[in-house]
Amino acid sequence: MAKQKKQPRPKAQTPKGFQDYFGADVTARNEMLSKIAAVYHRYGFDALETSAVETVEALGKFLPDVDRPNEGVFAWQEDNDWLALRYDLTAPLARVAAQFRNDLPSPYRRYAMGPVWRNEKPGPGRFRQFYQCDADTVGAPSVAADAEICAMLSDTLEEVGIPRGDYIIRVNNRKVLNGVLEVAGLSGDDKEVERGIVLRAIDKLDRLGVDGVRALLGEGRKDESGDFTKGAGLSDAQADVVMGFVDANAGIDEKLRNAAEVASVLGSENVNALSNAYDSPFTALFGRDIGASEVRNTVVLAHLEELVRDSEVGTAGVSELREIVLMLESQGYFSDRIIIDPSVVRGLGYYTGPVYEAELTFEVTDEKGRPRNFGSVAGGGRYDDLVKRFTGQAVPATGVSIGVDRLLAALRAKGRIESAERGPVVVTVMDRDRMADYQSMVAELRAAGIRSEVYLGNPKNFGNQLKYADKRNSPVAIIAGADEFDQGIVQIKDLILGAEIAKNATLEEWKDRPSQYEVPRAQMVAKVREILDGQG
Amino acid sequence: MAKQKKQPRPKAQTPKGFQDYFGADVTARNEMLSKIAAVYHRYGFDALETSAVETVEALGKFLPDVDRPNEGVFAWQEDNDWLALRYDLTAPLARVAAQFRNDLPSPYRRYAMGPVWRNEKPGPGRFRQFYQCDADTVGAPSVAADAEICAMLSDTLEEVGIPRGDYIIRVNNRKVLNGVLEVAGLSGDDKEVERGIVLRAIDKLDRLGVDGVRALLGEGRKDESGDFTKGAGLSDAQADVVMGFVDANAGIDEKLRNAAEVASVLGSENVNALSNAYDSPFTALFGRDIGASEVRNTVVLAHLEELVRDSEVGTAGVSELREIVLMLESQGYFSDRIIIDPSVVRGLGYYTGPVYEAELTFEVTDEKGRPRNFGSVAGGGRYDDLVKRFTGQAVPATGVSIGVDRLLAALRAKGRIESAERGPVVVTVMDRDRMADYQSMVAELRAAGIRSEVYLGNPKNFGNQLKYADKRNSPVAIIAGADEFDQGIVQIKDLILGAEIAKNATLEEWKDRPSQYEVPRAQMVAKVREILDGQG
Repeated sequence: MAKQKKQPRPKAQTPKGFQDYFGADVTARNEMLSKIAAVYHRYGFDALETSAVETVEALGKFLPDVDRPNEGVFAWQEDNDWLALRYDLTAPLARVAAQFRNDLPSPYRRYAMGPVWRNEKPGPGRFRQFYQCDADTVGAPSVAADAEICAMLSDTLEEVGIPRGDYIIRVNNRKVLNGVLEVAGLSGDDKEVERGIVLRAIDKLDRLGVDGVRALLGEGRKDESGDFTKGAGLSDAQADVVMGFVDANAGIDEKLRNAAEVASVLGSENVNALSNAYDSPFTALFGRDIGASEVRNTVVLAHLEELVRDSEVGTAGVSELREIVLMLESQGYFSDRIIIDPSVVRGLGYYTGPVYEAELTFEVTDEKGRPRNFGSVAGGGRYDDLVKRFTGQAVPATGVSIGVDRLLAALRAKGRIESAERGPVVVTVMDRDRMADYQSMVAELRAAGIRSEVYLGNPKNFGNQLKYADKRNSPVAIIAGADEFDQGIVQIKDLILGAEIAKNATLEEWKDRPSQYEVPRAQMVAKVREILDGQG
Repeated sequence: MAKQKKQPRPKAQTPKGFQDYFGADVTARNEMLSKIAAVYHRYGFDALETSAVETVEALGKFLPDVDRPNEGVFAWQEDNDWLALRYDLTAPLARVAAQFRNDLPSPYRRYAMGPVWRNEKPGPGRFRQFYQCDADTVGAPSVAADAEICAMLSDTLEEVGIPRGDYIIRVNNRKVLNGVLEVAGLSGDDKEVERGIVLRAIDKLDRLGVDGVRALLGEGRKDESGDFTKGAGLSDAQADVVMGFVDANAGIDEKLRNAAEVASVLGSENVNALSNAYDSPFTALFGRDIGASEVRNTVVLAHLEELVRDSEVGTAGVSELREIVLMLESQGYFSDRIIIDPSVVRGLGYYTGPVYEAELTFEVTDEKGRPRNFGSVAGGGRYDDLVKRFTGQAVPATGVSIGVDRLLAALRAKGRIESAERGPVVVTVMDRDRMADYQSMVAELRAAGIRSEVYLGNPKNFGNQLKYADKRNSPVAIIAGADEFDQGIVQIKDLILGAEIAKNATLEEWKDRPSQYEVPRAQMVAKVREILDGQG
């Protein structure tokens, strides 16, 4: 006896940083995943589901797109090997692309969806297991692959319920970034630290604004809490180059307003003229009435080309972006959906070409009731060296990852997902000995496709049964005791209407019980269907 | 340089015992999971998705339904805690039921689906990550909950494509087993070892047959390889009791043949008479024409009742089974779908009442070409003590787990799942500079709901493009070069028909290329749709 007492009871607790999902949260996510999968599939991508567990060797120990070598993976030792949970869906893809390279079609286009795990300090709204939903093309050198993924991302967002105008896909090119760094005199091997600071600063444009970024390019910046972040120590001339790049869209907006004005007053020839002024080769596209959104990307590109004209890699990068824009526009994707945005950085030392991210542009209120932009829900880009780790051979690849949980949160914030689903019809138990009769009632309801169940708790207290139905958000309760069985009838209670009446009715109205119906047993299914249809 | 060489390339390998799933294997599983979820949902179960990671403390260290304490979980230490991957979906449910007991409805009916992980020695066809798909009712003392799960299991199997007659759900009750052990004089505390041997022996009935089980009840059994398994050492009289129980169905079959004969010749009154002879209280049910399947369970129960009449727990167990049979029959589930089977054991020391398992009854050929029964694909039962570990309070629960991967394998063995899915329409690239035109072709196809893509590899070798389409199992290829663009046409190749012709045609026929069509660009989508529809 004493021995048994020593064993304390285990704590029933979700591990720190993890979460359990109930009911509608699970089904809404599954529905979203299958909508996304349908779009990916229509674009020709094949499903892949790798194991959640990888060897640490295959995974690489650290997250690829952060510069924090101490944050990492959940890993454990087995014999001589270390195993770990995947931290994203790209590393397993690289492993698969190398392992099955002789069997897979090339290019290999795959989509994958599922949880990933990160061994990070848990924080509010920061979980150690979350869903990703990726599509990647491995073995496609052409930027057509990048353009396609941007188009697909746009289609996907609209498919899951984000209407056009509520999102924007921003596209940049690491080669253009590198070109700007080169022009600013930051391309030497000895400038790696500065480059890192500059890229991180650019990445924070939407949070810090132009002045904040400018400060980080120079001496540094003190934030609201008084903490000081050391800057890159650039000269004013160097910083001007970088800021002229980062802030390109602001200048462009001004020009576009004029361009749009000109176009609307004088017709499309003037847009051609404007386009020519920016040295664009895309004038052929503009032989028709167009709005500002249709020239914006072309104008931005002309501006960028100007900025990096002295850098070979920069010029190549702009030319790639031009190809992307051309291909997107030929399919009708203009800058109302996809824009060239120099401020997109997306991680360090991982992407090698085009990078893209999807941002939701509507405001939501945060926990403290303040409005803020919802922000990024997906991102990706071209990474050409991931498979090389395994095979020694560079394989060009590009892909996107959607943060499913953030996207769900966005739809919820916009009221586009029901937070609670309708519960089952509950057949209550008035007489324990008639369980078989109650079971045949639900069998009939289910055969008619109506979600339903017999109350399976202790039936003694009838009030508990109705409380249960209420907790389940049940639309209807069926009630039948000895009297009802004798008469061959059932009582059907409209619980939604009942709750409304209970809220608003006088005692008299309440007594009339207009939310409860007595029908012959044979009409039970039809009456329940009628009530459910009426509830909408 | 030398330093870099020391770093060997990582091996691209799925960890031992794990597996990657491609294309149709992933989509077929997802489709099956959503069909199962739909049935569970219709039965009133709510979705739950717990984290893959649990504390070892909450999980309990060992698998609950095996007696091998050294086999277990994937676990790792974090600060003072040990974390582990869940090994099933029931342990996390117990944790959730305890943790959220004040918020969840009671009974709590939940379904869950997802991978589970077992740290076992990998073997052929034996994986360390596999899917489960569970439904459980927590807080329902009534065996109505067990009956319902058996009915649901039957509906689920038919929903995913196992027709009636190709499966059987076997139901037993641990209380009846205990009753038999009591009658056989094996109920004492000092008989635990013998009880374990007897239960394991019964569990092996389908593999060892009656004689094999009998041998294990006595001195022991030598298997084909010459290995000797020590028996329980029961006396002949004791073994007779157990065998009379295990073998109940064989004897019943004989009796049923007579009963069916009698019923068919003399009408249903005789079935009532037969039923009365077995002291059944269910005669009221038989007031109509019925076949052997409708009395079988009643007759088996009468036989079991006879066997355990001297055991209180055994009698209570039979009475529970009777309630289950009554409820199932009131919904039309007879012994053609669900039978009482005394040989069902399902693990040791875990289940406390009714147990059930679903077996597929059709034969498949194994790796060595031998026919064998497909066997069990799902199982479960009543376990009343799982939540008690956390709260100290016993909570009655019952549930089922479907082995999704085995069920998929069964459908595949029966040819009911396509092993390869149709690939995308491939728009080939004859002219690299017209990428935007090719992209707008796929945009049109996709807008019409047709799965399609532009070839994104190096377009130089056109043969590679067609090989790619072949590898993707593509139904159609679109071909358009300078000539076609000049004429405003496209070439559309029916690849399925083309492959058939290539197999069977003479050179002359081949030259006619009847599988390739030249159509105006504007008719491309319509022609592709026509070809796809023709391919079925």
